[in-house]
Amino acid sequence: MDQRLSQQLAFALEIDKEKNILRQTHLSGHGRRENDAEHAWHMAIMAYLLREYANEEVDIAHVMLMCLIHDVVEIDAGDTYAYDAEGLKTQAAREEAAKQRIFGLLPEDQATELMALFDEFEAYETPESRFAHAMDNLQPLMLNTSNGGGDWAEHGVSAEQVYGRQRKSALGSRLLFDEVIDPLIREHIEKGNIRP
Amino acid sequence: MDQRLSQQLAFALEIDKEKNILRQTHLSGHGRRENDAEHAWHMAIMAYLLREYANEEVDIAHVMLMCLIHDVVEIDAGDTYAYDAEGLKTQAAREEAAKQRIFGLLPEDQATELMALFDEFEAYETPESRFAHAMDNLQPLMLNTSNGGGDWAEHGVSAEQVYGRQRKSALGSRLLFDEVIDPLIREHIEKGNIRP
Repeated sequence: MDQRLSQQLAFALEIDKEKNILRQTHLSGHGRRENDAEHAWHMAIMAYLLREYANEEVDIAHVMLMCLIHDVVEIDAGDTYAYDAEGLKTQAAREEAAKQRIFGLLPEDQATELMALFDEFEAYETPESRFAHAMDNLQPLMLNTSNGGGDWAEHGVSAEQVYGRQRKSALGSRLLFDEVIDPLIREHIEKGNIRP
Repeated sequence: MDQRLSQQLAFALEIDKEKNILRQTHLSGHGRRENDAEHAWHMAIMAYLLREYANEEVDIAHVMLMCLIHDVVEIDAGDTYAYDAEGLKTQAAREEAAKQRIFGLLPEDQATELMALFDEFEAYETPESRFAHAMDNLQPLMLNTSNGGGDWAEHGVSAEQVYGRQRKSALGSRLLFDEVIDPLIREHIEKGNIRP
């Protein structure tokens, strides 16, 4: 087998580990905690189906691939909960090292491409990355609200924290923020699952 | 919220259940059994990275979406193990009913589109579906061989059964069959994990 194919397969096998990285979100039906691979799969399909609500026209294949690979770094860096202030301080450095190691398994052209795609997601500057982030936020919100908002209550999360993250969803999709995200947050503040 | 968006979100929540459909394959590192959502995520990324080996030029966004949604029907129909002769007899009818119910949650245009994509995958006739099937076969083979071929041994699978399925991978990628799949199968026949 030539070196290029062998590098591609080494990467493919390595990312299998993403299925063991657990998030704070629980599956619908009061299920177990979700893992990163499941989350990425879900986001990519949602991005495709909801692309008509993106603020700007997006290259949907680019958005989907970004969704699929955006959490690969967590194999080394671990999942940083959206409302974990301490973890968030070191997240960027941990993820940069992971990016170099994991995408570095690929042949150089593909390593460069996927590292750039990861950086694009993180930078939040292109229409594609903004819409991918909206999916990254909407997907756990949908699961959490389907379970009565228990993930917020368990962590004692405040409205300021939730809006701090979710308001940025409006940069990707104003409509989904106004019609879905904001009403759900308000409902769970009223119900006492999110601290006011 | 308008009806279209509400239907799209109902579908997005419904497919969360795919994360509970277990396959016979085990995760690398002698891990737990894999679920359908994880398998689909893995296949879609592998399709993107290995697309240069497809026999014919493929629309890769189309392949990836096909990979992501091809097992949604198993939410109702369950996973049918590739070497379960009894299950295979009723698989098509069970999956057809599931297809109608689950994709039918979507607005009509998207329901029609995703049902057609599922049918295209099943029909094995387009370059995209052939390459997606090659990934559907290569991904569990990669995990199983990383674990020493235990999934085959556990089910007492024969070479005829493995080749019956895996030979079709050559329709999607001759190179991956010749360079990766066939040598791995031979190795595991020799090792006694696959019955000769």
